[in-house]
Amino acid sequence: MTPTIDQARLWQAHLDMAAIGATPGGGSNRPALSPQDAAAHALLLSWCEPLRLHMERDGIGNLFLRRAGREARPAVAFGSHLDTVPTGGRFDGAFGVLAGLEALRTLDDAGVTTAAPLELVVWTNEEGSRFPPAMMGSRVHAGELALERALTTADDDEVTVAEALADTFQIGFLTLGPRGWAAWIEPHIEQGPLLEQHGLEHSGAAVGIVTGTVQARYFQLTVTGEASHAGAGAMDRRRDSLAAAAEMILAVEQIGLSGEPGGRSSAAWIGNAPNVRGAVPCQTRLHCDVRHEDPARAAAMEAAARVAWSAIAARRGVQLEVDAYASFGPARFDAALGAVLREAASARGLLVRDMVASAGHDSVMIAPLCPSAMLFVPSRGGVTHNPAEYTAPEHLAQGAQVLLDAVVRLAN
Amino acid sequence: MTPTIDQARLWQAHLDMAAIGATPGGGSNRPALSPQDAAAHALLLSWCEPLRLHMERDGIGNLFLRRAGREARPAVAFGSHLDTVPTGGRFDGAFGVLAGLEALRTLDDAGVTTAAPLELVVWTNEEGSRFPPAMMGSRVHAGELALERALTTADDDEVTVAEALADTFQIGFLTLGPRGWAAWIEPHIEQGPLLEQHGLEHSGAAVGIVTGTVQARYFQLTVTGEASHAGAGAMDRRRDSLAAAAEMILAVEQIGLSGEPGGRSSAAWIGNAPNVRGAVPCQTRLHCDVRHEDPARAAAMEAAARVAWSAIAARRGVQLEVDAYASFGPARFDAALGAVLREAASARGLLVRDMVASAGHDSVMIAPLCPSAMLFVPSRGGVTHNPAEYTAPEHLAQGAQVLLDAVVRLAN
Repeated sequence: MTPTIDQARLWQAHLDMAAIGATPGGGSNRPALSPQDAAAHALLLSWCEPLRLHMERDGIGNLFLRRAGREARPAVAFGSHLDTVPTGGRFDGAFGVLAGLEALRTLDDAGVTTAAPLELVVWTNEEGSRFPPAMMGSRVHAGELALERALTTADDDEVTVAEALADTFQIGFLTLGPRGWAAWIEPHIEQGPLLEQHGLEHSGAAVGIVTGTVQARYFQLTVTGEASHAGAGAMDRRRDSLAAAAEMILAVEQIGLSGEPGGRSSAAWIGNAPNVRGAVPCQTRLHCDVRHEDPARAAAMEAAARVAWSAIAARRGVQLEVDAYASFGPARFDAALGAVLREAASARGLLVRDMVASAGHDSVMIAPLCPSAMLFVPSRGGVTHNPAEYTAPEHLAQGAQVLLDAVVRLAN
Repeated sequence: MTPTIDQARLWQAHLDMAAIGATPGGGSNRPALSPQDAAAHALLLSWCEPLRLHMERDGIGNLFLRRAGREARPAVAFGSHLDTVPTGGRFDGAFGVLAGLEALRTLDDAGVTTAAPLELVVWTNEEGSRFPPAMMGSRVHAGELALERALTTADDDEVTVAEALADTFQIGFLTLGPRGWAAWIEPHIEQGPLLEQHGLEHSGAAVGIVTGTVQARYFQLTVTGEASHAGAGAMDRRRDSLAAAAEMILAVEQIGLSGEPGGRSSAAWIGNAPNVRGAVPCQTRLHCDVRHEDPARAAAMEAAARVAWSAIAARRGVQLEVDAYASFGPARFDAALGAVLREAASARGLLVRDMVASAGHDSVMIAPLCPSAMLFVPSRGGVTHNPAEYTAPEHLAQGAQVLLDAVVRLAN
């Protein structure tokens, strides 16, 4: 049996981390490469100091913290991200990093050294809410996005990733690319209600073994109409870009609701010009996405969305540009590594449920590089990207314990 | 016959004024109390210097430029505004000020002094696109809006009117309130196609005598849903504030299009939170308006909008707050003053058309204070609040001439 992790210490680490960028509702707001994000990294590093880890960063700011093993072997790696969306909770991303930290602390306390080195990883800008696309750090690491293109990406205030990296001293000199890991494990909160329900139905605590993810397709729509006066402009001569975009938002929603069972869709971001009282809008932009486990059905959702958007634009006499600017998945995680996690969970008396993730995660990018897996813990009510996001201390501890048990087995 | 105004000088004044805040498409962008707005005031003042006018400003930045008369009588006043919407053209507002300037220059050149003093006025923040409500300066002047409330109004960047006034040195010490004018005349571009059509149909050039305005009612809607993850959040459990707002935008549009003949409506401004890729929006705000010449029908449009908005909110399980934050009209302008303008136009061989304004103007606020009228000149294609806004030099000159002729008659 591996040593037992410290539930109270793990919970306190979540509370201390959540204090950085704390929001009134009890959540956290740590935009990627913001001062808050940098402070979160600094707090983590202060905790790591007594553990004598070897720290490295690469050119997109990904952070690698290596614990030496007894042998010169490929490392066993784990972690997640510390950035959040503006309405973020305390657990999305943070749990994967802090569970990894807790595993290392527990080994240190017990004086255990594994044969293989261990590596705790913090990926840069997983959320993509400030700088698109999502999973930017792991995407660059995996060679799916050119570093130069990532560095020149600007946020809504025209600050580039390169500038934000420099401003927060997050840039490093480690050569980019795969590090030859023996395995990659990402603990994460479920962000859905299934594990909570599974636990209630079977009178126990459940963890999830993630077999893969949906395919997601992201689009930027630019709708161009004509500016006119909100009072003086005749109604039947208007080409109102916001009204056209409103129809497109509802078309996106409808495709997720009813077009394809199991599909998800959203229109999350809108930019409107001139966006002033008194002027009929002339240019409106939207960021939308569609998702499905089956890539063929995701493609069908995209096709349906494009047909609907084009029809709206044609009927209203507005111009439409659709930029399919990013996508991910479907990822398929490593079955053997999943089995190791499943056995570790069962050995601790936990219920286990296989599941598919409908959100993107850094593991989607890592899966092609080495055996990869994700471990989910319950999210109360399935609430996420929301200050009310919550996972009970014992559920966090159970997830961290399964991670530690699996890592020790893999590294010996 | 009064002296003849200088068409070339008037046109050049428009070109020079339009160069301040010039936009790529040939329009102007001079937000109220911006550096561009202040520069426009400074340019006007430099032109007025040789005319020996007495300059005063009040506490909301309204500018009064008085030309002495031979007698101590109530002044004849005229003017408009110099601020624009971001997608503004070269003539909306500027024409009224520059026609007034041209009238004073012409009198000066001809050595004519009227019995009554004349007063050229520039109202602060007519557009309301940066700081709501529209017609802010004239509204405060008329006692329809408390100065303190106007000064504490903030723009989207949290800059208050008081700060913007101080930053642009636009604040003055003149006591607020009515100045006992004998008459107020506001020349303005039509911002609609009727005068152009009227001129074409009758083979001549037309000016419009504005008998009054529509009633307009402005609303801010705050739609509050629940934040969740764009991928992980189940479609049927979402309370997406942006999707709800999209339905409300279309409801507003429908009310203007078909609910009431002659009605206008728009949703011009949208604010969305958190407005990031990956997060289902949790709070969306809209600025909307409905307008009709008949206040009872404007009220019916508002009632229909409220019913539609409430039904959408109830069906989607989102909270809705509706703040009816401003309104204006219907204004009824002075018939006798309109007759003076009509006679002046006819005497110059112009076609004359009575009309109702569907946009708001400062004259709506001045009408209760003294005999007030508006004079419209044609807008090519009715295009306005758009860089393509255009009025031909001869049409501008005709309007300025009618203003001068009427002012001289009224002031003697």
